[in-house]
Amino acid sequence: MFETAELGCKLDKPEFKARAEQVRTELLKAQQELTDAGFSVVVLLGGVDGAGKGDVMNRLFEWMDARGMTSHTTDEPTQDERERPEYWRYWMALPPKGQICIFHGGWYAPVIERRVFGKLSSDGLDRAIARLNAFEKNLADDGTLVIKLWLHISKKQQAKRLKKLGKDPNTRWRVTDADWRHHEAYDDYRKVTERVLRETGTGEAPWTVIESADARYRDITVAETVLRHLRQRLDEKTPSSKGVPAPTDLPDPTTILDTLDLTQKLEDEEYDLELERWQGELNRLSRKLARRKRGAILVFEGWDAGGKGGAIRRITSALDARQYRVIPISAPSDEERAHHYLWRFWRHLPRYGKFTIYDRSWYGRVLVERVEGFASARAWRRAYKEINDFEEQLTESGFVVVKFWLHISSDEQLRRFAAREREPWKQYKIGPDDYRNRAKTNAYEEAANDMIGRTSTEFAPWVLIEAEDKCFARVKVLRETVTRLDDAL
Amino acid sequence: MFETAELGCKLDKPEFKARAEQVRTELLKAQQELTDAGFSVVVLLGGVDGAGKGDVMNRLFEWMDARGMTSHTTDEPTQDERERPEYWRYWMALPPKGQICIFHGGWYAPVIERRVFGKLSSDGLDRAIARLNAFEKNLADDGTLVIKLWLHISKKQQAKRLKKLGKDPNTRWRVTDADWRHHEAYDDYRKVTERVLRETGTGEAPWTVIESADARYRDITVAETVLRHLRQRLDEKTPSSKGVPAPTDLPDPTTILDTLDLTQKLEDEEYDLELERWQGELNRLSRKLARRKRGAILVFEGWDAGGKGGAIRRITSALDARQYRVIPISAPSDEERAHHYLWRFWRHLPRYGKFTIYDRSWYGRVLVERVEGFASARAWRRAYKEINDFEEQLTESGFVVVKFWLHISSDEQLRRFAAREREPWKQYKIGPDDYRNRAKTNAYEEAANDMIGRTSTEFAPWVLIEAEDKCFARVKVLRETVTRLDDAL
Repeated sequence: MFETAELGCKLDKPEFKARAEQVRTELLKAQQELTDAGFSVVVLLGGVDGAGKGDVMNRLFEWMDARGMTSHTTDEPTQDERERPEYWRYWMALPPKGQICIFHGGWYAPVIERRVFGKLSSDGLDRAIARLNAFEKNLADDGTLVIKLWLHISKKQQAKRLKKLGKDPNTRWRVTDADWRHHEAYDDYRKVTERVLRETGTGEAPWTVIESADARYRDITVAETVLRHLRQRLDEKTPSSKGVPAPTDLPDPTTILDTLDLTQKLEDEEYDLELERWQGELNRLSRKLARRKRGAILVFEGWDAGGKGGAIRRITSALDARQYRVIPISAPSDEERAHHYLWRFWRHLPRYGKFTIYDRSWYGRVLVERVEGFASARAWRRAYKEINDFEEQLTESGFVVVKFWLHISSDEQLRRFAAREREPWKQYKIGPDDYRNRAKTNAYEEAANDMIGRTSTEFAPWVLIEAEDKCFARVKVLRETVTRLDDAL
Repeated sequence: MFETAELGCKLDKPEFKARAEQVRTELLKAQQELTDAGFSVVVLLGGVDGAGKGDVMNRLFEWMDARGMTSHTTDEPTQDERERPEYWRYWMALPPKGQICIFHGGWYAPVIERRVFGKLSSDGLDRAIARLNAFEKNLADDGTLVIKLWLHISKKQQAKRLKKLGKDPNTRWRVTDADWRHHEAYDDYRKVTERVLRETGTGEAPWTVIESADARYRDITVAETVLRHLRQRLDEKTPSSKGVPAPTDLPDPTTILDTLDLTQKLEDEEYDLELERWQGELNRLSRKLARRKRGAILVFEGWDAGGKGGAIRRITSALDARQYRVIPISAPSDEERAHHYLWRFWRHLPRYGKFTIYDRSWYGRVLVERVEGFASARAWRRAYKEINDFEEQLTESGFVVVKFWLHISSDEQLRRFAAREREPWKQYKIGPDDYRNRAKTNAYEEAANDMIGRTSTEFAPWVLIEAEDKCFARVKVLRETVTRLDDAL
């Protein structure tokens, strides 16, 4: 879940200045409209120590009109608060219509901390999460816009930051023993947080994880995220704007896909050896599947011409034909359209001992349907949690779920399109749509980045495949499939 | 929660026939409209053994157009189903748009049964409930209309029904050992079911508990409930119909209020003795409150002129003035209107050692706001769960919550109105609104009945007060307050 917030995103001073000016102007404008818009705004700032929640809060107060804003910090409860229901301190801090309250820590901080330090059992955490969700649903139903931001830094960055603050006599007071104790528990924090964010990232109140190592990047991203949510809600009032497709003229975003090393290759000889080795392993494991009452679900997503078909064939040729089904997903049939949007995937789920391989999948909801505007923003936003719930049930009932994203560069894609047009037996694979989609590459890339961030779970993580070299990609897909099956069996 | 389904409601043959004819005609009409309405319908039939789920299902198939309907019965999972995710069997049974599926038992039956027979821990039940809610939210978000009916009979009626079926050679096969085992566990069933229904009665998918001792009443009520939900959803499409106030020309409903014995009285002497006794007890207990880190919240609802003020004064005169606040609730202030609808109650919550007495309360949402159409149907429907969640947090954090409904007959109300007009110092208490509200008595009574059924919980049950005689009512209020405090301290 945090992979997409460890990309090393940075902003230099001139760009920061330019974007700051723009976002400030628009935020003030939005805030003015908010006054009469008839709803209130809750901005929840979560994040590990040292990620800069306090700095961000001050920044927002500096950039926006502080008259319409209040803040709330979740400290140790006061005597007053201890003698009231758990949520009373949040209830009382909720802003009236037309105003914004920024919650530092909010209702998440105590829950996560109590779980990390063992004061809350795993089941207790479930109960706490149910309460968090019920509360936010209640707020959303009542019309409040809930914007949830999670400021993320890595363990290394956290240590660096704490040391730096501790050295400076002016900031030394900000570093407490508790901060260092939290630092030692960083890995637990991360695990608990991942679960909490996954189970509370609902359609009404989604999370945005903000990469926070660089303060300039962090502040701008927070401000722009707040603006985007606020803008969207304000514009919803104008009836013509439902189901707006994502803009296609996005600037080139920095995404997790940019971190992949596409130069990785495999020479022919090595390819043959490796292929044989992993196919053999896969075949061996596939025969264990039924005995262990397990099944396997492989999901392939990625760019057009990314090599999904080829990778799938290298898997199926290691299996008995009775043991697998490949389900190519394109536009839904009439019957499928009449059912729940997941029905067309539900109907092909394998039984124990079998593989179902989805060539494109339910992730279409948050990729093509999002980018092309086939699904409303409300629908694709809530899909992240629906999909996580679905995959959790799959793994719980004994299925191994492996999800591959096959990534190629834009140039390579163009080369492959051209090659398809030249080969008569591949021409069916290429059409004007493919070229048209290229115009929306940035929107697709942003959607893929969000998808990976929000649906990479401990039970069903995404495996990113550097697919510029077909041989390398195929072997990596096979090897990862085998590894995941081996772990599970 | 089931009090409102043990009222002895019955239908005689002629009335059954007349209402059956009407509901059948309208159901068929609605079903026809459904075909092109672009959504699907799930009817969930839950209930204890012997309440007649099977009979009701057959009835619905007989009365409606079976071509647009399917059924699903939750039996022991088949081999096929065991090798799939837990919910797969429900997923696959979901109807396409334009159609209806009736689920016998549905996703609730296995959860409740496993909890009753100890195969699911209390925490496991929480998790299962979270999954039920997520699933239904997913369905509702996707556009499915989810109608949930719970067929209720008492333990005695269950025994009678099982015996009767067992005697008749034609129906003997329908009574299994499992049925009798379930009968022995009736009380556990009831407790678990109450919790499950309370926590899954959401705004999108509310429960309706159906009194099922009389088959004719049961079948008609089920059919009419299905029709009402279906009709409402079909009519939602026509833009003019949001926030429709409840009809004021309802037939006189049979409600739990009808079961109260309003002839109960207390003579003056006895009243003085009892008053002194319970006020003394209350005073004694009130001084323990702070030491035990507890607080008290008393809620008064009931008919206009039901005697709330008088009952409250008999409580407060037993307390130290620094220890209590009485909050009279009327129309919200501007500031209150700008906040969450519960904010105006949150702000007056007591601390430990104190009493807050609400003269009218958050229940206005499901009473006056429902009947007068100030809250949309969507808003007041989801309020039941919001209120239960709220009161659960209150009791969890140490507050004793006692809720009183003061009930008087319509004639008595009229007498008291007239008396108020005669007494100069009481004239401020009466206005044209009071008379106007009387025209909606049946709508209010139905709302009160629903409220009591849905928010009478084990942690905060409603106490119904027979208030025709003021002395009797005041003493009962005091006694119940003392008893509840005594239990808690």
